[in-house]
Amino acid sequence: METSDNATEAPDEAPVPTGIAAQDWATASAEPQYRAAVVDLLGALAYGELAAFERLAEDAKLAPTLGDKAALAKMASAEFHHFEQITDRLTAVEEAPTKAMEPFAKPLDDFHRQTAPSDWLEGLVKAYVGDSIASDFYREIAARLDSDTRSLVISVLDDTGHGNFAVEKVRAAIEADPRVGGRLALWARRLMGEALSQAQRVVADRDALSTMLVGGVADGFDLAEVGRMFSRITEAHTKRMAALGLAA
Amino acid sequence: METSDNATEAPDEAPVPTGIAAQDWATASAEPQYRAAVVDLLGALAYGELAAFERLAEDAKLAPTLGDKAALAKMASAEFHHFEQITDRLTAVEEAPTKAMEPFAKPLDDFHRQTAPSDWLEGLVKAYVGDSIASDFYREIAARLDSDTRSLVISVLDDTGHGNFAVEKVRAAIEADPRVGGRLALWARRLMGEALSQAQRVVADRDALSTMLVGGVADGFDLAEVGRMFSRITEAHTKRMAALGLAA
Repeated sequence: METSDNATEAPDEAPVPTGIAAQDWATASAEPQYRAAVVDLLGALAYGELAAFERLAEDAKLAPTLGDKAALAKMASAEFHHFEQITDRLTAVEEAPTKAMEPFAKPLDDFHRQTAPSDWLEGLVKAYVGDSIASDFYREIAARLDSDTRSLVISVLDDTGHGNFAVEKVRAAIEADPRVGGRLALWARRLMGEALSQAQRVVADRDALSTMLVGGVADGFDLAEVGRMFSRITEAHTKRMAALGLAA
Repeated sequence: METSDNATEAPDEAPVPTGIAAQDWATASAEPQYRAAVVDLLGALAYGELAAFERLAEDAKLAPTLGDKAALAKMASAEFHHFEQITDRLTAVEEAPTKAMEPFAKPLDDFHRQTAPSDWLEGLVKAYVGDSIASDFYREIAARLDSDTRSLVISVLDDTGHGNFAVEKVRAAIEADPRVGGRLALWARRLMGEALSQAQRVVADRDALSTMLVGGVADGFDLAEVGRMFSRITEAHTKRMAALGLAA
């Protein structure tokens, strides 16, 4: 059924993996600094999923209907399964999940405390913005990871269905009362600001992770590239906010 | 590999199902009052699971360690899957889950509001006591339901692992400081009192369910039997509290 002798699984434009991206975990993790960076990355991702679980379960209490409540509980449960996948992997590579998560607990808890939504719509916007930015960020990183870690990261970024749900509810609320849009736009801007400030704190604190981000461990990831990555993420955020009916 | 010609799957002492318990859903549900009673029962059970999910997720925030937090999140997620099984069944028999749950939302929310735990240990005792009583109650009822509903109810009562976890943590806390035992014993008594008062309200409000409970629809379930059922449940509760190191 092949259509060409040169048929390849990679989509058009995707660069052929080289360096670490062409290696599996067994090979790549022989480099201690790479291993430490991945453990950090998985620890941050795991705690992020656990915090997302808690946040969604909390937001479920603000749900206006039983159906909305059940929908949020379903998403929370999906996040928990992602959390399990990541902690299972950490255990499999003989790293204690708790120890890997610990450094990221405070920054993530602080972020959530400083951005506690005051109502159902703020909760939806927060979950949507947070999910999307985290997902963009991990996808950018994933391309530069060893093949095993890459498939794990990609699989836990699978859509939990939150995006469409939030977009639908928020758009309907803005249509019903356009003033809601202004308030939520301000809220989204505040979320982005807080997220960036916590991310900076993490980067400053975690040597291995930062070294990987600015190159030196994973391939082709120099400071200029990090800058471009943040531009792409911010741009995607702006587009999403516009689609939601909010000026970012 | 049979050991006897009379080998049977039923455990010793278990009565052979008769009447409704010997029928499947298709046959039993032809009786409208039985159908209404089962829809009520599943609605109550579904909302109970959703509320348990929320409660465990909330308690996860009080967890003293990251490991405890993850353990509670896991149980919450298990409760959510039970919730899904029940709502899927309601949908399959063409009953709207939301409508079936609605009558039980207020009594269960009231119960949870009036018994909000003030710390991690109170949360554990509450989850343990609540889970166990609900599980005893549904198991008693299950024996009198049609075979399809019975297997569903039994499968969602599968141990979520909460029991052992709570017992272990609470016993350790009492050993470390025996005064904790007195406080938690009072707490467990208050929980039992609130649970009974909400249960009475539900029974008074829901005709089909009450009729099934006191006989008239399901077999062999007269008022005296209901009394004995409540005695058995209370007795099991007392034994569990003693095992926990608490005087009920």
